[in-house]
Amino acid sequence: MKAVVKNNTEAGLSYLDVPRPEPKPGEVLIKVHAASICGTDIHYFKWDQSAEDFARKFDVQFPFIIGHECAGEIVAVGSDVRSRRVGERVALETHIPCGRCFQCMHGEAHNCANMSVYGTSCNGCFAPYAVADERIAYVLPEELSYEEGALLEPAGVAMRAVEEACLEPGDTVVVNGAGPIGMFAILLAKASGAGRIIAFDMDAYRLEMAKRLGAQAFDFTKVNNVEKVAELCRLRGGADVVIETSGSPKAYDSIFDMIRLEGRIVTVGHPGGTVSLNVTKSINLKGARIKGIFGRRIWSTWEHLTALMASGKVSLLDVVTHRFAFSQYQEAFAQLSKGAGKVLFLDEEQTD
Amino acid sequence: MKAVVKNNTEAGLSYLDVPRPEPKPGEVLIKVHAASICGTDIHYFKWDQSAEDFARKFDVQFPFIIGHECAGEIVAVGSDVRSRRVGERVALETHIPCGRCFQCMHGEAHNCANMSVYGTSCNGCFAPYAVADERIAYVLPEELSYEEGALLEPAGVAMRAVEEACLEPGDTVVVNGAGPIGMFAILLAKASGAGRIIAFDMDAYRLEMAKRLGAQAFDFTKVNNVEKVAELCRLRGGADVVIETSGSPKAYDSIFDMIRLEGRIVTVGHPGGTVSLNVTKSINLKGARIKGIFGRRIWSTWEHLTALMASGKVSLLDVVTHRFAFSQYQEAFAQLSKGAGKVLFLDEEQTD
Amino acid sequence: MKAVVKNNTEAGLSYLDVPRPEPKPGEVLIKVHAASICGTDIHYFKWDQSAEDFARKFDVQFPFIIGHECAGEIVAVGSDVRSRRVGERVALETHIPCGRCFQCMHGEAHNCANMSVYGTSCNGCFAPYAVADERIAYVLPEELSYEEGALLEPAGVAMRAVEEACLEPGDTVVVNGAGPIGMFAILLAKASGAGRIIAFDMDAYRLEMAKRLGAQAFDFTKVNNVEKVAELCRLRGGADVVIETSGSPKAYDSIFDMIRLEGRIVTVGHPGGTVSLNVTKSINLKGARIKGIFGRRIWSTWEHLTALMASGKVSLLDVVTHRFAFSQYQEAFAQLSKGAGKVLFLDEEQTD
Amino acid sequence: MKAVVKNNTEAGLSYLDVPRPEPKPGEVLIKVHAASICGTDIHYFKWDQSAEDFARKFDVQFPFIIGHECAGEIVAVGSDVRSRRVGERVALETHIPCGRCFQCMHGEAHNCANMSVYGTSCNGCFAPYAVADERIAYVLPEELSYEEGALLEPAGVAMRAVEEACLEPGDTVVVNGAGPIGMFAILLAKASGAGRIIAFDMDAYRLEMAKRLGAQAFDFTKVNNVEKVAELCRLRGGADVVIETSGSPKAYDSIFDMIRLEGRIVTVGHPGGTVSLNVTKSINLKGARIKGIFGRRIWSTWEHLTALMASGKVSLLDVVTHRFAFSQYQEAFAQLSKGAGKVLFLDEEQTD
Repeated sequence: MKAVVKNNTEAGLSYLDVPRPEPKPGEVLIKVHAASICGTDIHYFKWDQSAEDFARKFDVQFPFIIGHECAGEIVAVGSDVRSRRVGERVALETHIPCGRCFQCMHGEAHNCANMSVYGTSCNGCFAPYAVADERIAYVLPEELSYEEGALLEPAGVAMRAVEEACLEPGDTVVVNGAGPIGMFAILLAKASGAGRIIAFDMDAYRLEMAKRLGAQAFDFTKVNNVEKVAELCRLRGGADVVIETSGSPKAYDSIFDMIRLEGRIVTVGHPGGTVSLNVTKSINLKGARIKGIFGRRIWSTWEHLTALMASGKVSLLDVVTHRFAFSQYQEAFAQLSKGAGKVLFLDEEQTD
Repeated sequence: MKAVVKNNTEAGLSYLDVPRPEPKPGEVLIKVHAASICGTDIHYFKWDQSAEDFARKFDVQFPFIIGHECAGEIVAVGSDVRSRRVGERVALETHIPCGRCFQCMHGEAHNCANMSVYGTSCNGCFAPYAVADERIAYVLPEELSYEEGALLEPAGVAMRAVEEACLEPGDTVVVNGAGPIGMFAILLAKASGAGRIIAFDMDAYRLEMAKRLGAQAFDFTKVNNVEKVAELCRLRGGADVVIETSGSPKAYDSIFDMIRLEGRIVTVGHPGGTVSLNVTKSINLKGARIKGIFGRRIWSTWEHLTALMASGKVSLLDVVTHRFAFSQYQEAFAQLSKGAGKVLFLDEEQTD
Repeated sequence: MKAVVKNNTEAGLSYLDVPRPEPKPGEVLIKVHAASICGTDIHYFKWDQSAEDFARKFDVQFPFIIGHECAGEIVAVGSDVRSRRVGERVALETHIPCGRCFQCMHGEAHNCANMSVYGTSCNGCFAPYAVADERIAYVLPEELSYEEGALLEPAGVAMRAVEEACLEPGDTVVVNGAGPIGMFAILLAKASGAGRIIAFDMDAYRLEMAKRLGAQAFDFTKVNNVEKVAELCRLRGGADVVIETSGSPKAYDSIFDMIRLEGRIVTVGHPGGTVSLNVTKSINLKGARIKGIFGRRIWSTWEHLTALMASGKVSLLDVVTHRFAFSQYQEAFAQLSKGAGKVLFLDEEQTD
Repeated sequence: MKAVVKNNTEAGLSYLDVPRPEPKPGEVLIKVHAASICGTDIHYFKWDQSAEDFARKFDVQFPFIIGHECAGEIVAVGSDVRSRRVGERVALETHIPCGRCFQCMHGEAHNCANMSVYGTSCNGCFAPYAVADERIAYVLPEELSYEEGALLEPAGVAMRAVEEACLEPGDTVVVNGAGPIGMFAILLAKASGAGRIIAFDMDAYRLEMAKRLGAQAFDFTKVNNVEKVAELCRLRGGADVVIETSGSPKAYDSIFDMIRLEGRIVTVGHPGGTVSLNVTKSINLKGARIKGIFGRRIWSTWEHLTALMASGKVSLLDVVTHRFAFSQYQEAFAQLSKGAGKVLFLDEEQTD
């Protein structure tokens, strides 16, 4: 089969012949029907500092098949697979837990102390077939398509951000940064009890999408974001929650001023370098709560997300703007730099 | 002025001349612009056992002006009123807390140990003017009309039921009983993160309304309610939550069988007499959680509700089906026995 | 080897030669160093209605080795065991989850929809060697002895009751019924933030132990339990929490009157038959919350419990009053009917 | 009467004749029996930048009587006081809420948007008699002495830190900084479910006290604090919680490395200037939660604290090391710079 492969630390990717994988004990073999491109994949494509840091932290070995957001059908299982079966439709979790550390024993397997990362620590899923530990294969409810299944992992980050936002009914949520995770956060916060969503970005394409998804969206290079939030949240003196997805260090100059007294901030985007913080003013006297997000609760976040989707309350496909075959990987990455929502790879039958 | 008055423990009400009240120290005088009829008022109209029990518990004195759900404008204040001002648009909370007991000191003033009840322990609001302790006057956000304001108290019961349901995103909620509180619960659970609402009643008028408000609604005299929930909640083995508003003792024969393992029940309706319960099967092995509701959190429930309304996410007026002047009180109560959603009284100017 | 065996539905047990078990794939073989007798084992000894109901529910097959509370060392592992190793010191969880149902996917594996029960659905641990699915083997922190390890499962029920009591600092907890689970609850509630524990029982031996463990303990046949609680909890109008462990249907006549407004009840004991409840008075107007307990959270309850023990804050061994060899099983069960705290079986080397 | 007065922005205080105050409407007059010196009072004594910032923020007017931690008896009430009575023993809350803003309506009156501060925005309590708004007078349970009453406000900060730490049973808590708030935090975290407390400071006197109060205490200038925590929390990879009370900006270089994955930080101390933070590493990948503390929940924090004290579970007086009359204010402040736990002022009768 042919797969999208990262050979070394240079920029770019290759589309190469590789052997079809065999499931080892405890593994399932999946016919990949849909996959989705993550920000991490873009970093890997470019191989920037962020790629370097993340890949080293999770023991990358070259060459490897990239990609970790996908859904497909189990077509074979390893010798002692206990909980999954051939024929099941599944999506994959990226964080592979050890099952033994305190976090794994305490309902926090998503941040396992000995975590491996699918598509980094091992081969990923930008290929017609992929193997995975049975413990990261989530069975899709029948109401969900493979395309929707491929979006569960990234949308799960937004879902978890919403969980940790501890929304009270009618809360106003600022989504800072309207990339794909921000867009999912708009949809999911709205579906989970928020009264109003305010989104900030500087990209016209994204702002347009954010509005279509139900947010009041503003270009923060044109309006003062703190003043805009204060104006819209006059009664409470600020937003109840900021979900920060931009990953820009500059965001930290304003997000604490956006929230009301005793408000909450959920940080999803990973800023490079350090930020400077006035703890007394921005955290203590403010009574702020800040929570960092890495991964999705296994599996309660997935259950929340698929329940919202299966009930028809949210349509994640509204965030998808482009679809390609794996062979078109160069067009796909090119499109992402030009402007896109979420970009999917589909198997050849569907894209022919 | 003329007011709707309960003179004694006989059935019926009177529409009588009474003096316009003067605000005492700590009280505000309100020009009532909209009021709403509660189930308690219907019990008072009929003066049944439930009326007798409730009125005695909260020290009723005859004659008294009935009514406790209302909104209006403050037109005068007593000598030492500190927190409210003439000209403010307010709605009234019914539970008058003592401000000194443990519950009042612990954020549970809605269930004060020395509670008085507006419209029972003192005169109520089915009149052009009403006085009230400033501590139960909630200032309306400008986005809300007086009609909406008059619905805050009863909808607040449903809002609190939803709060205590501890919804996770996408949960399925059964609303058992589709009277006004049940209808508000349908709207508010949906707006607060539920994926799906299943409503049961036996009244065709209410079932029709429940469907229009967004629920899957069934006549429990025609379908087996436990089987219907099991069928719709196949993946989880039952509903996540039942909000019981019917107040029928018979409801307790089925609601525990409707929830999934570790599911939750919120009881709002007050059944007469006792119910029989298999604790081992229905609570322990089931892992059930049951929470009883009496009143609204002061004021966080009100804040949740008005935030949802002000954002445009829920329209409580969808539950209102009829409007009358106070002078038409007999038609109003007659309509309620024929079939209605929520019934409002409006001031004469609006109903002339 | 010789094991304590239940042959059929008649009263009594046998001490018989059985083959030493071999671990199948996914199983570990444990040298049992300490085991503990549960109320379920007593029901099995007598084979009463409760035994009949529980055993049938969980697919009992005769003959079977009884016992499910134990700790020991892993001395062999099945062919594909992934997460446990020879030499590890472990204690066993009784609830064997399927790993696939909604409860298992949602952090509620302790109440799995397809649960098997160790020592009922399969052979148990009242024997020198026992096999168990690796997924129910909890690795003991080095600070804990095997005797302590054997108490984790039953004390875990009390730990979970305390978790679900949602204690606020200084709360007063009534422990209704001072059997072993009640005694553990006294220790664990105290260690987890309760200010004061009030225990009720009618057995002088147990009341004496409850006092030694730190409770104010009363014989409910001699003092009016509701009045005693009211007197001790004058400021709040009742206890914050009742943990009901007696399993007596009569308990439900008083426990709702013991709690303050907005108080909580956690039901652990399994009453036979049904109880009669005034929902309006005892749940709704009271604002009560009731939660039923079945099993321990896997594994967060275990983590809480072992952290409290390893820090030296609680000593569960204070509840142990007698120790026997498996061969003395008749004396052990006889002792339990005469009066005892928790009764342990130790391996022959320790009891010789 | 004579009072401890701040006349202007120069260093030092005066002990001056002032008129005995009269309670205005809504106010109570208190005979002060015990008062306690806060860090803020020390800043006011020195009048440093921190004093300047805080006093300006809360509208200081010179001269004013300083002091805000106290307990005494109500000896007179203003004309329309509704909820307090002559003869009641009370302690004072410092944060005077407006009663109208969103925070006040939402259970967050401790961080009112229009807050006044007792002893800053108005006269305080370092005097034989003091007046206060009835709404900040907390009635002491009879089990508590006036000395204990005077400690409720500062210990309430520690109590709230413990509340926001969201302790699970057996958690390990690092108390960073063992001044009075840190010492209270040691006692209260232990009483509220923590298994183990680790305290850091550089002052031998404080370290000694921290050990006596039940912590493992270390001089962070002599041991590496991060390594020490890692060693003591080997099983979980770090502490569950850090309560930061030192107010040192340098603390932020280590506290994020002390917590385990998904651990929590509660910031109580107010660092001057800004701190530098690596959000990606310290918050996001760590899964950290940070919560800033300002004030005590009104009144639930007080209820928690007094319940723990009245039950005998904690003795706050263990933190008190020195007692003075108001006339000895210079010795009192001098002692604080030499080394002390909590320092009390008692009325003349008691200190003569």
